[in-house]
Amino acid sequence: MIERFEITILLDFYGDLLTEKQREIMEMYFNDDLSLAEISENNNTSRQAIHDIIKRCQKSLLDYEGKLGLMKANNDMKAKKKELFNKIESLNDMIDDSELRNKIEEIKSDINDLF
Amino acid sequence: MIERFEITILLDFYGDLLTEKQREIMEMYFNDDLSLAEISENNNTSRQAIHDIIKRCQKSLLDYEGKLGLMKANNDMKAKKKELFNKIESLNDMIDDSELRNKIEEIKSDINDLF
Repeated sequence: MIERFEITILLDFYGDLLTEKQREIMEMYFNDDLSLAEISENNNTSRQAIHDIIKRCQKSLLDYEGKLGLMKANNDMKAKKKELFNKIESLNDMIDDSELRNKIEEIKSDINDLF
Repeated sequence: MIERFEITILLDFYGDLLTEKQREIMEMYFNDDLSLAEISENNNTSRQAIHDIIKRCQKSLLDYEGKLGLMKANNDMKAKKKELFNKIESLNDMIDDSELRNKIEEIKSDINDLF
């Protein structure tokens, strides 16, 4: 089963591929934690209709991830970034020169800004 | 006007969001450089039908880029990566210690593998 927090992340990546209405409903349910009853009331529609939209959109988001894999690529990237960051940090132990240390601090901050 | 090579890149990013048939036709036209006449013959359909599919898919690819911006993000990332790589390389001029130099070579190669 897909976890709630995964849908939230997929919404970040692929929400723009949904219609505005679909995205709104998904955000109410997954980000704002509104109940089906509350969302259906806000939208003047039935609880069942909202339920169906959520199920359909959830499937779309998973399909997009299956095809484009942005969430997975992002996770892989984060892991690589952390590893790289740690390697650069470990250089500090080998360095006395303060100018060189500063350069390395600068590079660490560049890596942090990378993605 | 959108350049031919941009469509080729967009096809790499978003081709999986097209149907298999659409992607095949786009690849024949943009990657394999077949003419409309050749593609229509291969597909037992009219030149006009192929032309329409290509136009429609081209629009879809541009829409996807407008929404997800993967090509732009990738270009930005490449520029940042190059900058980071150059900064790390410039450290070499400040370093005599061979162990440290080796570490830095390793980090450079990690950056190359990043994306």
